[in-house]
This record gives sequence, structure tokens and C-alpha cells, in this order.
Amino acid sequence: MIILLKQNANPQQEQNLEKWLASQGIAIHRSVGENNTILGLVGDTTTIDIDLLLALDCVENVKRIQEPYKKANRKFHPDDTVIEIPTKNGDPVVIGGGTFNIIAGPCSVESEEQICEVAKAVKQSGATLLRGGAFKPRTSPYAFQGMKGEGIRLLSLAKEMTGLPVVTEVMDPSQLELFEDMDIIQIGARNMQNFELLKEVGRQDKPVLLKRGLANTLQELLMSAEYIMAGGNEKVILCERGIRTFETATRNTLDLSAIPLLHKITHLPVVVDPSHACGISSLVHPMSLAAAACGADGLEIEVHNNPAKALCDGPQALTPEAFDKLVKQLNAILPNRYTGE
Amino acid sequence: MIILLKQNANPQQEQNLEKWLASQGIAIHRSVGENNTILGLVGDTTTIDIDLLLALDCVENVKRIQEPYKKANRKFHPDDTVIEIPTKNGDPVVIGGGTFNIIAGPCSVESEEQICEVAKAVKQSGATLLRGGAFKPRTSPYAFQGMKGEGIRLLSLAKEMTGLPVVTEVMDPSQLELFEDMDIIQIGARNMQNFELLKEVGRQDKPVLLKRGLANTLQELLMSAEYIMAGGNEKVILCERGIRTFETATRNTLDLSAIPLLHKITHLPVVVDPSHACGISSLVHPMSLAAAACGADGLEIEVHNNPAKALCDGPQALTPEAFDKLVKQLNAILPNRYTGE
Amino acid sequence: MIILLKQNANPQQEQNLEKWLASQGIAIHRSVGENNTILGLVGDTTTIDIDLLLALDCVENVKRIQEPYKKANRKFHPDDTVIEIPTKNGDPVVIGGGTFNIIAGPCSVESEEQICEVAKAVKQSGATLLRGGAFKPRTSPYAFQGMKGEGIRLLSLAKEMTGLPVVTEVMDPSQLELFEDMDIIQIGARNMQNFELLKEVGRQDKPVLLKRGLANTLQELLMSAEYIMAGGNEKVILCERGIRTFETATRNTLDLSAIPLLHKITHLPVVVDPSHACGISSLVHPMSLAAAACGADGLEIEVHNNPAKALCDGPQALTPEAFDKLVKQLNAILPNRYTGE
Amino acid sequence: MIILLKQNANPQQEQNLEKWLASQGIAIHRSVGENNTILGLVGDTTTIDIDLLLALDCVENVKRIQEPYKKANRKFHPDDTVIEIPTKNGDPVVIGGGTFNIIAGPCSVESEEQICEVAKAVKQSGATLLRGGAFKPRTSPYAFQGMKGEGIRLLSLAKEMTGLPVVTEVMDPSQLELFEDMDIIQIGARNMQNFELLKEVGRQDKPVLLKRGLANTLQELLMSAEYIMAGGNEKVILCERGIRTFETATRNTLDLSAIPLLHKITHLPVVVDPSHACGISSLVHPMSLAAAACGADGLEIEVHNNPAKALCDGPQALTPEAFDKLVKQLNAILPNRYTGE
Repeated sequence: MIILLKQNANPQQEQNLEKWLASQGIAIHRSVGENNTILGLVGDTTTIDIDLLLALDCVENVKRIQEPYKKANRKFHPDDTVIEIPTKNGDPVVIGGGTFNIIAGPCSVESEEQICEVAKAVKQSGATLLRGGAFKPRTSPYAFQGMKGEGIRLLSLAKEMTGLPVVTEVMDPSQLELFEDMDIIQIGARNMQNFELLKEVGRQDKPVLLKRGLANTLQELLMSAEYIMAGGNEKVILCERGIRTFETATRNTLDLSAIPLLHKITHLPVVVDPSHACGISSLVHPMSLAAAACGADGLEIEVHNNPAKALCDGPQALTPEAFDKLVKQLNAILPNRYTGE
Repeated sequence: MIILLKQNANPQQEQNLEKWLASQGIAIHRSVGENNTILGLVGDTTTIDIDLLLALDCVENVKRIQEPYKKANRKFHPDDTVIEIPTKNGDPVVIGGGTFNIIAGPCSVESEEQICEVAKAVKQSGATLLRGGAFKPRTSPYAFQGMKGEGIRLLSLAKEMTGLPVVTEVMDPSQLELFEDMDIIQIGARNMQNFELLKEVGRQDKPVLLKRGLANTLQELLMSAEYIMAGGNEKVILCERGIRTFETATRNTLDLSAIPLLHKITHLPVVVDPSHACGISSLVHPMSLAAAACGADGLEIEVHNNPAKALCDGPQALTPEAFDKLVKQLNAILPNRYTGE
Repeated sequence: MIILLKQNANPQQEQNLEKWLASQGIAIHRSVGENNTILGLVGDTTTIDIDLLLALDCVENVKRIQEPYKKANRKFHPDDTVIEIPTKNGDPVVIGGGTFNIIAGPCSVESEEQICEVAKAVKQSGATLLRGGAFKPRTSPYAFQGMKGEGIRLLSLAKEMTGLPVVTEVMDPSQLELFEDMDIIQIGARNMQNFELLKEVGRQDKPVLLKRGLANTLQELLMSAEYIMAGGNEKVILCERGIRTFETATRNTLDLSAIPLLHKITHLPVVVDPSHACGISSLVHPMSLAAAACGADGLEIEVHNNPAKALCDGPQALTPEAFDKLVKQLNAILPNRYTGE
Repeated sequence: MIILLKQNANPQQEQNLEKWLASQGIAIHRSVGENNTILGLVGDTTTIDIDLLLALDCVENVKRIQEPYKKANRKFHPDDTVIEIPTKNGDPVVIGGGTFNIIAGPCSVESEEQICEVAKAVKQSGATLLRGGAFKPRTSPYAFQGMKGEGIRLLSLAKEMTGLPVVTEVMDPSQLELFEDMDIIQIGARNMQNFELLKEVGRQDKPVLLKRGLANTLQELLMSAEYIMAGGNEKVILCERGIRTFETATRNTLDLSAIPLLHKITHLPVVVDPSHACGISSLVHPMSLAAAACGADGLEIEVHNNPAKALCDGPQALTPEAFDKLVKQLNAILPNRYTGE
């Protein structure tokens, strides 16, 4: 971290600052230029609040030069994190380290018939994990909020029937007691900085799929991963699902450059959710191919089964047939995808 | 709500759509043009998911024409919401309906001495409510997370001493049991769409100060207010505190046009937090004047007491002296501020 | 276009509005609901200014239901635009309609040796067009502004030597007289809404490569293409090159979902510039693969030749060796890329 | 400027970098830490391209510590720029240095009657300059593009009649020959980085009102001012007119914190255009008061005269009566506005 002092900084304030930094275990390299004095901070600056320094009367500018995350940082952990999820027939699902996994299923669990049919269909096409929402974050209090506990029970049934491990979202620590049979806990985009929830899943012994918030930088995503890892749970899977921009033609803007960039700076696996990002079902297929091509470790895709009953073809979801076609084209592209410099 | 059907829409899908709409209690005005058919939906469309419709094969476009919020909507509640907060000496603090309140205090409660000194100082200058954080949302797991229960106790002490009602932030439903003596529950920007927390404060009998999320539209802010109000708690105060944009010269971009716009579309009071929005203490004074001029119902301002001890002057916070100077200039501007068309 | 009138609209204003619409050749479908009256406009609404209507006292809301562009609209021109660029050895370069072209070369033309060496190298690797800047838009007036006329002359030399057609940027109508031997005129992102320049290139008989502005929607991009096409020049190639968002880890955010979406709504070819979007050379390779996978009609890539002389490896540019490696992997992925629903 | 080298930087590349920096007249302070080497650059770094450095193999990070603009920088020119515009009756209009000016008039010049009536009305209410568009930048090629030369002639007439100096927009250097009688040349938001146009107005002997681009940072605004000033024309007036964000409730988001921030970092006057920023006429009044309260040097406001004829009340424009009411309230607020720390 570099601190640029003001030209006419009050010497007393400057001394206070240097004392306080020393009390935090930070050594200081002082470099006096023609117009300005620069303090180079040496030591662990991850706990230093940059906004606090910026607000000091004697400080002109502060620049962080090293990342504020440690456990998620590839510099300190050069090898890919590899997460194994046991399945009942013995062969675990392996996420990270060069594998490619497809998490598929409906947005919401709606009935036993629905979740079981979709689960069977996506398994047959090549999905390796089942997704389905039991607790649903909805912008409107008047919208369907999910089947809750009953939805979790139906996901267990579908898992029992197909052998697919299950990914499902938690919205509040109090719901976690129902998650015993669930395999991956999903943190939704709106909860990416729900720090109390992050701390709680950090105490669980289950992989966490952490979605990037709509307006969060990659550094903030890694800081939220760091919350979970600091609690002892290092099995974190990151998920790019689109960011909020001025463009209204798509629901959000899928930031695929995040994939190779995250792979450079962190060892955690990165998957992509093209369904929520775009909000347009016809974009799911091409954006899935693009995500695979630039090196994603997997995809999370919405698949819905019953177009006639479910009001045509459902929001942003593929039919099982469209999903099957997508997996075939993905399999053709995967051997030539990007795998690092 | 208006649905534009595709030129060659499948008649079966169209029938499914119309049946489903009818099942939701929605009447349909069908208008057949040269190229397109338009369905005008009549009835309560607040529960209709616009994304669901947009994803249908037979639908070209959907436009919402009425607001999806009801309880927060000024159309249905033309009179300003006025919130009274009792104080121990009898005269309640009144928020909304033409009053102007200043909520002031430190970002975090740090000690009894600190919170009590600041409370006394801001009261003397003209603050009508005390703020102070006991539970602190921090981007980094390694940063100070607040004094928690002990911080709440110190806020009670400062309230007892000064008579100022207290505003403090909750981060998780489990913390609410400590809030008995607190007067206004603050929901921070990162929790604006923590729907489980919104439902919980909707069951409380205390005013809620709801901060706009960094990447949330005004409509989403009102939908989150609607969550709280739908639970039975109609005492909601909205707070503009800056949105995330491409500009990096300020921490966030304070959206002051939100003030007169919110006053048009909702009856809830609106306050402004210039300290967090800008992240630069020298901008707090001018932006407070601007907020007052365009009609804000109040301000939430960070004030810190002990510059020497507390590492110079603290982040984005005013000293008690600077705060006093600001209140004097505010009082000069208030008689001529905007009060509606 | 749909106009929702206010509940208590002034009948005189409403009549004025209807008369004015009729004078513009617009027929009106009037639909009276319980609370509101809706006017459905039938006819060519491309010239109607939506902001003008929104500002009327009697109008509550206006929604455009059809696109304001015609010549660029796939609805009216279902077949792909295919642009042929003659080359001196007879076989034209064909852009659009299922082909894939790579435009490669240095950011700025710096010397005869540089541009000719890069041109030879990229041709050998498989580039089909040469890029190079003679007029450079630079944020700072103190930065190098390009070789101007001399740069154009050197591009002609490199074209003569390699047979590669040349793409180069124009910044002002007065420069066009120098462009006789250039093959494609590039309009940079900052000039996407320089309407006088668009009108001028609309009068040229040369293909135009139109880059999306940093803060422009896809609809605005198509409106700018419409400016060029309305002038008589229908040979427009669109280019996605990243948009400005809150994320600072990359220079801009590459919006790849724009590719399949543009292919749905317009018949114009779409290429991607991953070099400028990301600003980080290590991201060029993976993002090029992703762009190809989701159906781009080509790429524009910066290649620099002389790392030792040119201050290591140049900004965001690949070396000829890295470019060669990229083209090989692109060729492996192209047979399985997305080609439409 | 600070350069952080990579841990295992290639010594040859590092030498190349240091040689090149020396050739640019930059001295280097080398500071070797435990893990990294930091180069502190001393000298005029305004011409150094930060992106170029960031792209070097041997560079981990680069941070600019001083501003890249000089002529616009308050550090080097502490006194306010004050611009005098002569009027025919002798008393010049003075912009900057503590004055407050209101530029008012219609969006487009439409007829002699219109511009003269509006000019008389706004003068009587207290406007000190007249605005009116003769060349209009329009998103659609099918929309009205302005009266052009005839519009300029009518502005001259209105100036002759009222004595008000005139502000009008230029879109292309070729139009400037018509501007002899115009008093301030306006550069619109979309042309803020039309560098050829900036260079051209930099050669004029007339004040320039430079509007901030929809997606441009304050630093980029000052770099564009620097383009004009570097050409010899130091009479630049900056104008905040809203930035593009995710919020769609207003056309753009008016960034009022730009006012006090610009006043800190530059000596140039800053005015605010609330009409274009919001796109909603009812917000013009409150946002004008807010702009004045936080220290703006003036306002640019759209006023339209003939509501009945001009399709009710026109887009985002005030009637002369509403404008008169606004000026009265502004005059009440001005004595207590922010005037600096």
C-alpha cells in the first residue's frame, strides 16, 4: 500500500498516522520527493481500511498495491482448488482442476413430478448436478416465494432417484438445518454481501456456490469468498451470473472476461449461469458455448419440463430437448477450449 | 400491463397464455393491428412476473404500465406518511409531512466516552436523532465488525443521557432481540434485498430506515419497502445514499434527483446520507445543503469526536465543529427549500 | 407505440396530442379502461420522439413497442448482409453470411518496417484484413496523436506488399480525402454518436466498421448504423468492444451476449475487438475463443512486432507468435461454434 | 506515478522500461521491498500512458498519483477562472469567481417568433444568457436536425433584440464559420471526446461550454478541457448534465457531487443542466435549487413558450411562468449557498 501525503501536511497528524500504522505491525518506507512525500507500507495490509486513510487530513491519495484477500489468492495457493462431491454410486463429482460440470434443473421446485422428470432428463443428457430452488428471493412480496421445506424434501427425492448431487439456495441461516441432504449450498447474487449468512456457511462442512452480486467487483466477490474461507470452509465455487449495467436489452450483462481473469488471481473454480444473466432463453445456448470456450469450470442452466402446462416455455429456461442439443454442442467444443496460458 | 404478441404467434400458446391470465383474475383487452396483436391486461397485475411473460414463445414484448407496489404508492395513499418517535421528555420526533430531521453520530460505536460525547455535541448543534453502528457490515472478514451487544448497550446509555432517539443497523434477524430500546431499525444498502430480513422487520413495531442498495432502482427500493409494509409495519423511511456508477472520483454517486422523484411516487419520507455516498468529508457539507434544497425530509450524517486519538479526523466524518457550522447553514437554507409543485 | 394517458388528463391537451399525431400520419386505437385511457399508435413511429411525448402534461407513460430503426432491422431484411472487399489477387474478402474474418495489426502505425513486418506475420498466420491507426483518438492532448497522412501512406505500402485489405479509423470528415486506397473506414467508440461524421461516411462507397460506444445501448448502435445506411451506404459492420461499467479489473466489460442478440435483430455482420475491451493482453486469447464460440463474424485483434524496441510487449497487443497460436486454436473451435437457432 | 514490478520480472525488460522512462525525462526512485520492487516516477508524467505500462510483462501494477491535466488543474492555478462576455449595452456578463448566471432558452430554435418571445421572457425573469439549438444532435437520422444556418441567424436577431449573449452548440468544425456573432460555443455531451472538434474550438477566441459525456469521468472531462486549453483557448466552462447509470426512472443521473469536487480540483467555472439530466420537467425546479445550494456557478435551463401550439408543454422544458417562479426561489437560496470550505 502506498500513501501519498499532502504537500503541506500537518507534521503532528503525520506522526499520529505513522504511530498508528506501526501499532498495526506495518513498517514504513519513507520516500521524499520534490513536491510530495510517499509512504510505502510493508507488512500485512489486508486489515487496513483504505477509506479510513483516504479521509485523513494529511493524506492526498492512497493506492492499494496488493490484494486484500489471502486464502482465495492464487499467489499464495498456486494449485487449483478441487472439490469432490460424493454420490451414492461411488464415483464423486469433481469440480475444479480441469473438469467441466453442468448443473441443471428448474428455477423453482414446483412438484414431485416436475423435479423428478427434469432430473431424469438432464441426467440423461449429461448434467452432473441437479439445481432447483426451494427458497426463492423475489423482488415482490406478492410473488411466489418457493415451496420451502417441502421443496427441499422433493429435491432429496430427485437425488435419491437419479443419484445427482443437489445445489440449492439458502436465504437465511435459520434455513440451514433443513440442508443436511443437500450437497452444495448456493448463495444468491443479492446475498453476496450478506455477511452474517457468509459467516454461517463458513461454519458448514459443505461446498458453497457463491454468486457474484449484480453490482459487485471481482475483488468484492473474492472478499466474500474470503469470509466463507476465513470461517474454515475452503470449498467455495464462484459463479459469474451477469452484472447490472446501463444496457436494457438483456436483463444483466454477462461478464465472461471474469472467467480467465478469476482463474489468474484465484485458485477457486468458476462456473457461469447464462440463464439468469441474459433473461432470454435463446441466448443461453450461445453464451454457454462462449463460457466453455474461455475456460469456465462449468455451467448452471435452467431447464423446465412441461411447456404446455407451465405457460409455454418458462422464463429463460431451456426445454429438455434444447438442453440436450446444447450439451452435444458443448461436448464438441470442450476439447478445444481455453485452458490457460 | 401491455403484451405485444409475435406476428406469427402459435394460437395454442396464445390460448394457454390467455387462460393462465384469466386464472390470475386478469381481464384482457384484445386489440388487433395491421402487424401485431396487443393484449391490454386489466386488473391487479402486481403479482404478474414480467420476465415470465417476456420468455414466452408467442410474446414479442411486455410493458408494465402501472407500478408493482401498492402500499408504498402515493396514488393510493396521497397523504404523506408521518412517523412519530416518542422521546423521554415528551415531545416526539416527527419524520415526514414537512419536517426536517438530522440523524447524526459516529459510524461505529467505539466506547462509552466516544458515543456519549458525540451524542451531546450533535444534540447541542441541532441533531434530532443519534446514529451509531453496533453491528458493522464490512467488505473484509479481517476488519473490525462492531461492538455488537455492547455497542447497543452504549447507545442506550447515550440515549438516556441526551434524550435523543437512536437509529442503528441490524444485519440478521437474530440480532433484533437486542433492539428493544433502539428507536429506528436501519437496513443497510447491502441488505436492501435481504428479503428474509425485510420480512422480519416487517413484523416489528418500530420504524425502519431502509437504505437504497448500491445498484438498485427506485422501483426496487419501493418493492423492498413494500415487503416491510406487507408484513404490517408501515413506518418506513427511505434513504438515498449513493449508487454505484463508473465514476471513481467519489465512492458512489449521490442521486439527489431521487428525492423529488420519490416524493412524487410515494408517500414515505426520504432522507439522504451524504457521508457514505461521497466518501470524502469535504463533500458532506455542500451535498447536505443540496439535499435540503431539493426537498429531503432529513439527513443522516457521520460525526466523529476525537480527531487526535482517532487517527486524525476519521473516514468521511465531520468533526462536531464542522457539523455545527453545517447545521447553521442548513437552517438558513431550509425556509427556501423545495416543498413540491 | 403505446401512450398511457393520465387519469384526469386535460381534454384540450389530449385533443392537441391526437391532432398532432394525426398530422404525423399516425392512426390511433383508443382503449378506455377502468382507470386509464390507452392510445395505441399505428403507422410509422420511427420519427416520433418518445421523450417529447413523455413530457406532456396529459401523458402518464409511453412505451415503444417497435424498433426505431428500419434499414438495419432484420424484420424487414431477413437475409444476412454480405460485404465483399476486393483484393488485388482476385479473391475478395467476404464478411457476413457465415464467414469468419480476422482483422489484425498494430494499434498505431509507427514506421514502414513495423507495419510491413506485422502485416506479413499476421497474413501468414491467417489474418484476412490488416488494421493500423494513422489518426489516433487519445484522452490526453499531450499523447502521440498518430502519424496521420504518412501513416495512411504506410498502410497502403503494407497492403501493396501483402494484398491484405486495410481497416483504419477516421476522426473527422476532412480526413476522408486521404482514404482512397483504404478498404474499410473505422468509426471509433468515442465517435459512435458523432452524427456529422456518420452522415459523411454514409455518403462514401466503402464499408464502415462501426464500434459501439462505451456507454451506448445496442439500440443506439443500430440507430447510428441507420444514420450511415440512410445516407445510402448499407455496408456497415458492427463491432462490440466493451462497455463502461463499475468493474475496474478490466478496462471495459466485453458484452458478448451482444453477438447473438444483434444477430437476431439485425442482418449486419458483427465482429468483436477483445484487445481494447479488456486492456489486458492475457485475456485476448480466451475472449477471442469465446467470441467465436457464440457466433461472431470475426475479430479485430492488436498485434505488435518488436517487443524489445517497443517497450517490452506493448499495450494489450499480442506478439505475432501469440497471435499465431490463437489462430490455430480458433480454427479448431470454429467448426463447432454457434450458428443460430 | 508508482510502478510495482512483478516478483520475477525479467531484468532485460526492466532495463528497457527504465531506459525508456529516462528518455521521457522521468527520474526513478527505486525501492526494493521483501517481495516486490517499486519504482517511483519523478517528473512530468502527464504524457505517460498508464495502459501502456500496465501491459508490460514485467509490470504488476501502475498507480497514477498526480493528475494528468495541468492547465485545468487548480494546484497550478489557484485562482478561479473568470470569463467576461461583453454585451452591447456595456455591462459584461461575468462567469466564475462567485457569480451566478442562468442560461435559458428553448432546446431548438423553431421560428423567429418563438426564439424572440422566449428570449424576452427569460431576460425579464433574470436569465443572463440565451440558449437555443441550431444544429441538433439526434439519436435518429429521421428526427428534426435543427434549423442550422437559419437558426444561427434567428439567435442573432434575438440577441440584438434583448442584449442577451448567446450560447449555441457546434457539431462539426465546418459549422464554426457561422458562429461569428455567437458568444459561447457549446460542445455537447456526445462530442466531449470528439478530439478534432476540441482542437478546433481550442483555436477560437470565444468561451467554450463543455458538457460532460454520458459515460465520462470527471478526470476525462478535465482532459477534454485540457485539449481546448492546450490549443490556446483557456475560457472553458464545464457543465454537469447527468451520467448514464442503471437507473431508468430518470433519463440520466445528475451527479451534483461533481460540483464541489470540480471546484476543488479545477479553477474553471462549473454550471449544471438539470433539464437534460432528468428528462422530466417537474424535476428541473428542485434540482436547480440543489445545484445552486452546493455551489454551481450557474444553470442552463430549457424554457419553451407556446404550450398550446407546441404540443402541450414540450420535453423537459419549463414554461416562462414556471421559469420565473424558479428564478425567484433561486434568488432566495443563493445568499446561503455553499461557497467553499
